Order: sequence, then C-alpha cells, then structure tokens
Amino acid sequence: MGKGAVGVGLIGLGTIGTGVVKVLRDNAGVIEQRLGFPLRLVRAADLDLATDRGVDLSGIRFDSDAEGLIADPEVEIVVELIGGYDVARRFILSAIDAGKHVVTANKALLALYGGEIFEAAAARGVDVAFEASVGGGIPILRSLREGLAANRIESVHGIMNGTTNYVLTEMEKTGEPFEAVLKRAQDLGYAETDPTFDVDGIDAAHKLALLVGMAFGASLTFKEIPTEGIRGLTPVDFEAAHELGYRFKLLGIAKSRVEGGEERIEARVHPTLISADSLLAKVDGAMNAIAVYGNAVGPTLFYGAGAGELPTASAVVADLIEIAREIRRGKAGRVAPLSYAPGELRRKPMVPLGDLHGRYFLNFTAVDEPNVLAHIAGALGEHGISIESLLQKRRAEARGSVPVIVLTHPATESHVRAALQSIDALEDVTAPTRLVRIEEGL
Amino acid sequence: MGKGAVGVGLIGLGTIGTGVVKVLRDNAGVIEQRLGFPLRLVRAADLDLATDRGVDLSGIRFDSDAEGLIADPEVEIVVELIGGYDVARRFILSAIDAGKHVVTANKALLALYGGEIFEAAAARGVDVAFEASVGGGIPILRSLREGLAANRIESVHGIMNGTTNYVLTEMEKTGEPFEAVLKRAQDLGYAETDPTFDVDGIDAAHKLALLVGMAFGASLTFKEIPTEGIRGLTPVDFEAAHELGYRFKLLGIAKSRVEGGEERIEARVHPTLISADSLLAKVDGAMNAIAVYGNAVGPTLFYGAGAGELPTASAVVADLIEIAREIRRGKAGRVAPLSYAPGELRRKPMVPLGDLHGRYFLNFTAVDEPNVLAHIAGALGEHGISIESLLQKRRAEARGSVPVIVLTHPATESHVRAALQSIDALEDVTAPTRLVRIEEGL
Repeated sequence: MGKGAVGVGLIGLGTIGTGVVKVLRDNAGVIEQRLGFPLRLVRAADLDLATDRGVDLSGIRFDSDAEGLIADPEVEIVVELIGGYDVARRFILSAIDAGKHVVTANKALLALYGGEIFEAAAARGVDVAFEASVGGGIPILRSLREGLAANRIESVHGIMNGTTNYVLTEMEKTGEPFEAVLKRAQDLGYAETDPTFDVDGIDAAHKLALLVGMAFGASLTFKEIPTEGIRGLTPVDFEAAHELGYRFKLLGIAKSRVEGGEERIEARVHPTLISADSLLAKVDGAMNAIAVYGNAVGPTLFYGAGAGELPTASAVVADLIEIAREIRRGKAGRVAPLSYAPGELRRKPMVPLGDLHGRYFLNFTAVDEPNVLAHIAGALGEHGISIESLLQKRRAEARGSVPVIVLTHPATESHVRAALQSIDALEDVTAPTRLVRIEEGL
Repeated sequence: MGKGAVGVGLIGLGTIGTGVVKVLRDNAGVIEQRLGFPLRLVRAADLDLATDRGVDLSGIRFDSDAEGLIADPEVEIVVELIGGYDVARRFILSAIDAGKHVVTANKALLALYGGEIFEAAAARGVDVAFEASVGGGIPILRSLREGLAANRIESVHGIMNGTTNYVLTEMEKTGEPFEAVLKRAQDLGYAETDPTFDVDGIDAAHKLALLVGMAFGASLTFKEIPTEGIRGLTPVDFEAAHELGYRFKLLGIAKSRVEGGEERIEARVHPTLISADSLLAKVDGAMNAIAVYGNAVGPTLFYGAGAGELPTASAVVADLIEIAREIRRGKAGRVAPLSYAPGELRRKPMVPLGDLHGRYFLNFTAVDEPNVLAHIAGALGEHGISIESLLQKRRAEARGSVPVIVLTHPATESHVRAALQSIDALEDVTAPTRLVRIEEGL
C-alpha cells in the first residue's frame, strides 16, 4: 500500500460499486490533494467474477471472499454495496466486529436495522456512514447533521425517488397512463423489473425514516410511515392538475409539530400536488430535491441526481474521505450517525393522517346527471369543507361517468375522509374518490 | 460555565451577532442534544453598549473590551462579526495568536487576507470557520469541502448576493428603472445606504474568490475577478429578455477548464441572462442559490436565504458546533479551511474574458433608419457572429433612437468585442452597445 494511504475494501461490484472504483481512480489526484494522503482501493469482492464491468481493476485484489476482505488488515474501511437485508447486515456487523469502519448506500437495511448497526458501531468505536442512501449524490445527510445543526428543524420534504419522478414527469408530458410509461421506463432501465419498492413509495419511506431521525432526533422505522405510491394516478388527474396550475410529485414529507409544549412527528409518503410555480415542480426526470426548513435558516433546498452510478459513488467516496481523515487522526465517532448524540434519539408520538390540515384535490367519478354536483358539494358542505375550484371534465373515465375535480380550501383530513365516505355511498358516484394532498411551500 | 460546556466569545453585536445570541439561546436544547454538551456564550463585546438589541443578554458578560474577551480563558472560540478590514483582521490574528479558534462571516476580509489568516491558524493549531461568509445560511462551503469532496469540481455558479437579486426581481416585476428600485430597497432596508459593494458585484466577487479556492484548489484574490454590477441594466433590457424567455440575474461564475492537460480557471461576476425555465430563474427576492457541477455527481443546486439575521446566524452556529466537537476531541485542523490540504492550494492561470465562448445578448442603440439593421447584422457577420434572434423595440431609449436587441449564437467573446467596436463606431449607432452574457445550465 502507498505511503500513508488509507485502505478500502469494496463488497458488491454492481453499478454503484463500479462507479466507486471509477471515482477512486479518476479522481485519485484531487482526493489526495484534499486529504493530504491517498485513499486506496485494495480489495473488492463479488459473487460474479466473470462480468466485464468496463473498469480497470488492476492492482485491486478481486475475488468472492467477502469475509476475507473484511478480515484483511490492509482494509480499514469496508464499503457494503450489495443491497438487500440478510447478507448485507451480516457483512456490516462482521466488519464492525472486526473494528472496520463501514460505508453503505443501503437505505432499506438502515431503515430496518439502523438502530442495531449504529449501536454496534458505537460500542466498537468505528464509524458508519451512509450519505449515498438518501438523495444519491446530494450531500443532504451532511447538511442536516452538520450544516443546519444550529436549527430546530421544522420540516423536511421532497422528491426522494428518481424512478417515480421520471414516471410522473413522463405521464405529465405524454398524457399516457401509468402502465405504459412504467413499461417504457423499464425498457430504458429507469425502473426495475419489479418496480414495487419505487412506485409504491417504499424506497422513499426508507429514506424518510432516516431523515426523520436526523432532522428531529426521532426514532421510527419506515413501517410506521403511511405510504402511498403512484399507481392510482390517471391521465385525467394530470390534465386537471395542469389546468389548475399544479404538478404531481411523489413526496416524502416529515414535520415536527410542537403544540402545547408537546412535539409530535408527521411523516408520510404519497403523491402530492404542488404549485407549478414552486421550485420542486421544476425538478424533472430522475433528479431529486429535498427542502429543509429550519427555525433559524428558514427554507433551504438541496438538488441533484438521486441515483445513478457516478452520483451515488460521489456520496460513497465523500464518506470514505471523511472516515479516512478520522482514521489518520486516530478518532472515530465525530458526529453521531443520526446527528443526535447517543441517547438523544427518542420515540416521539406520531401525528395520525386524520389530523393533517391542508388543501385537497378530490377526483370524483360520478354519473353525468344534473344533480350530481349539488350532491357532492352538499356532502362536502355538511362536513364543513369549502370548495376552492371545481372542474367537471367531459372526458369519461368509465362508461356513463364523468370525473368531477374539486380543490378544497384548507380542511382537516378526518373531515374530508368523512365527507368522502358519504359521497362514495351516493348512488351517483360510481367509483371510490381519489384524494391527493396539496403541499404548499418551496 | 456549565459542566462540559464549550465557551464562546462574540465580538460585534450588530444584526448577525444578535442573531447568534438568539439562536444559541432559542436552540440551546437541540444543540446540546446534537453535541452531547452545551455551547455557551460567555462573553460579548461591542463599542455600542447602549442600543437595546431586543435580546436577552443575562448571564453573558457584555462590554467593549474585545482584547479582554480574546484573552478570557473561558472563551475557547472567538466569533468575529464586526466586518470591515483592519480591526477585524487584528482581532482575528490576535485570537489565533492566543490559541483561540475563530468563526467569522467576513468574506471581504477573507477574500483579501484569507491566506495570512489560514496560515496563522494552521501554525497555531486552531480552526478558522466561515460558512456564513458565502450563501448566508446555505451550507455551501461544507458541501464543497466535504459533501462533494470526491469530485473534480467543474463549475460553481449562482446567485450570491441577495440585495442585487432583490433589485433585479423588482425591476423585472415593476418595469421601473434601477435607481427607483434601489431607492425603495434602501428604504426597506434591503440595500445599504452605500450600495456599492452589492450593486457593483464586489460582494459577489469576495464570495466567488472563496468558492474558487474550495472548488478548484486555486488561490486568487477577488481583485483578479472581472466584476461588473447591475447599474447598467434598463427597463428595455428587461422587456426584451422577458420576450425572449430569459431573466437577468447577477451571477458569480467559476469554471475549471482543462485543455491539453493544462487547467485554467475562469472566474467572473456580471449580470447574466438565464433561461426563464431554469432553476436559478426561480430564485427571487433576497434568496441565494449556488449550482455546483462535479465530474461524478453532475449538477447540484443549493438554495436558501443568503443573508439576514437568523439565516446567517444559523451558519455561524453550525461552525461553532463543528469546532466545539473538535475542542472536545482535542484536535483541530480536521479539514483544511479551503478544503485542499496545506500546500495544495495553487496559483492557476486565469482564462481572459476574450476567451469566453457562449451566447450573447446585445442591446444596440441606433437611429431608427431603414439600413441600421443591415449595418449591425453586416458587422456581426464580418466577425463570424451569427444571430439567433433579433428584436427591434419601438420604445425609444434616447431621442430619435431605438433599441435593437440581438441574441447571438455561440461565439468567442473577443470576436464579439471586435464586432461591437466597429458597430459602435457606426454613425447610426448613438450609444455604446450593452453586452450581457448568457449562461446555460441549471
């Protein structure tokens, strides 16, 4: 190993792993200029040794022996990039046990087993870094952990999944239905063969769970986050949103609500309408952007590529650089993984969806009959919900039915839900009403 | 002092200093939760002891003895917020000499004396942090130094001065001339009584000089940055830009150009036209946004309040938190002030403005006479510059003259300048032509 170099071992030579090799090679010069010493990839492990990754692996020991890599005394930092749960968890815990620092991009694993992993690392005195797990190349975790650390964070919300953002952008642009656009995204490699994690919002919920910890010092698992994907949206929704001056985005939204001295956490992932004039509305295709509101800094926004070989590798290697500094300084644990000091991460009560207060986009499917609008408006009025705009689309979604779109004034979600319950029971209403929340702000 | 607290001394209790007191008080709880120990303001100094700042100073020793504050053994970090050159420089060097860490928001000072200050700090083994000096509350320096440290940075550009952005936004909205809008901005407190630093681009050049160091490891002083302010823009320019789908922003722009193995640095501050569809075009009023392109991460954007009491204090206190961690860990110098390791910051050749290559907005003032367009187009053609769009505005800027606006196709600036020289010599052309560069991208 080069004089003074810090040695890195990489488990998982897929897309991102290959990107990490490229960045460490191509940017070795500038990395050494920043660090004052080299960062050296000494070893890589993958079960697939045959595929040509189109990257120069000379000088790197490459085999399928991940446990050997972890045990190798030349490896001071282990990068886990195989994804998934069981094997990744075992390798990470084994690396920590061996006194190695760990870098991972595995949000799914951290959203489930983060607590266990961070505790093991703290006990063993090693660092675990995971900038690449949220927002790809965007340094959003560092910004929450350090750049905005002087703030009481009030909210974090944004576009955290590039696949769904690509699909929504295309649906809006082409007017095509979800299935057709998803198929094309799969053909182009923008969506996985099994798109569930992305299109059902699970990936965004994984990321939001990590952000909630960093932002509010609140520990929760992603399963506690109400999550709704984008499968239900139709071309009629897009057409109406466009006419009303809005765009659909799948947002992860988390807020800290302090009322009467008690803090409750709101966290949710769902398709959301945002003003076409907002910054987030300008974030198209596979890009990500996350807005953070702090009580001192006010609104901030962080934009960049949320996925992809090199952007994700940029974040992995930033973590390697940070840990390498600490290794040379002989210290770990500079900043707690979720920013809050050990013991300060707490369970906090969650705000139920019924308590949300905001504006709603409602798409009713009703028989095209003179009184139907009166029935819908009447039921909304009975529940105290007033209408901001109303559109009746001529284009039929189902035989004999027409969509009626309503934007409400601010209302409490439980009241909206109650109104929808009575409306959906009407004879004139032929399909369950689609409810989409509207988010104000950046 | 509280158990385990790190003591802070604050010199300069103006707007930002008062903000720092507020943030340290209001967010003491969350700051301690993140750090694991309190950050305590023990002492403040200002020449003005009479003004009521509307902030609770109880428990803080407050007098006009800055040297006493620096020497106070309870003060481990000195915050310099008096601004200006001589006195601020003396206090900072004196604090370093006393072995105190320093936090400052003083971009003007750093842009001139950064080298001296950073060297003194390195020699004495203390940290100097200055996140608040660029982009107010936006953690842009941290992001360049650490979050994007794996990248060879290709460019940094953005809106770095809130006052000019406010004036430009208002000029666009109201159609009023510069002087009227500036006057209103001064009345509202958005602009200083002497607006020179802001409207002439000097403040942005100070910030860009720091960004150039961090991004490219290139040392330069702000005086080397070609700088042009916004005084020259007229309502006709705004009207034409709007018709053509562009907006005016005062941008700081820096690029690393590697050609034939040699790296040259481009750095400049000037009014710039950007597409109305771009993200930066959406940044209005006093907000800032800085785009960074890295060779791995691709395009990124960082948005937030570029000035103001609490946003700037957010950045100052983030620096205090970072340094407090290092004090407790017994180490300084974790990351070099400008990100590059000692000795790696180099003089690099600059790209002269004549070598720029891009599209140009040209506003000719010409006699309203049938042949004038032919003359202008002919002179442009002779210098190899082709026209993308042309607008002849009916509204006269000067008696008997009309503005003729041309957007060029990409051209080399020296050629454009040569063409303007011959055009401005034409009898039909009654005033020097205004040239505004167009910037593509985010």
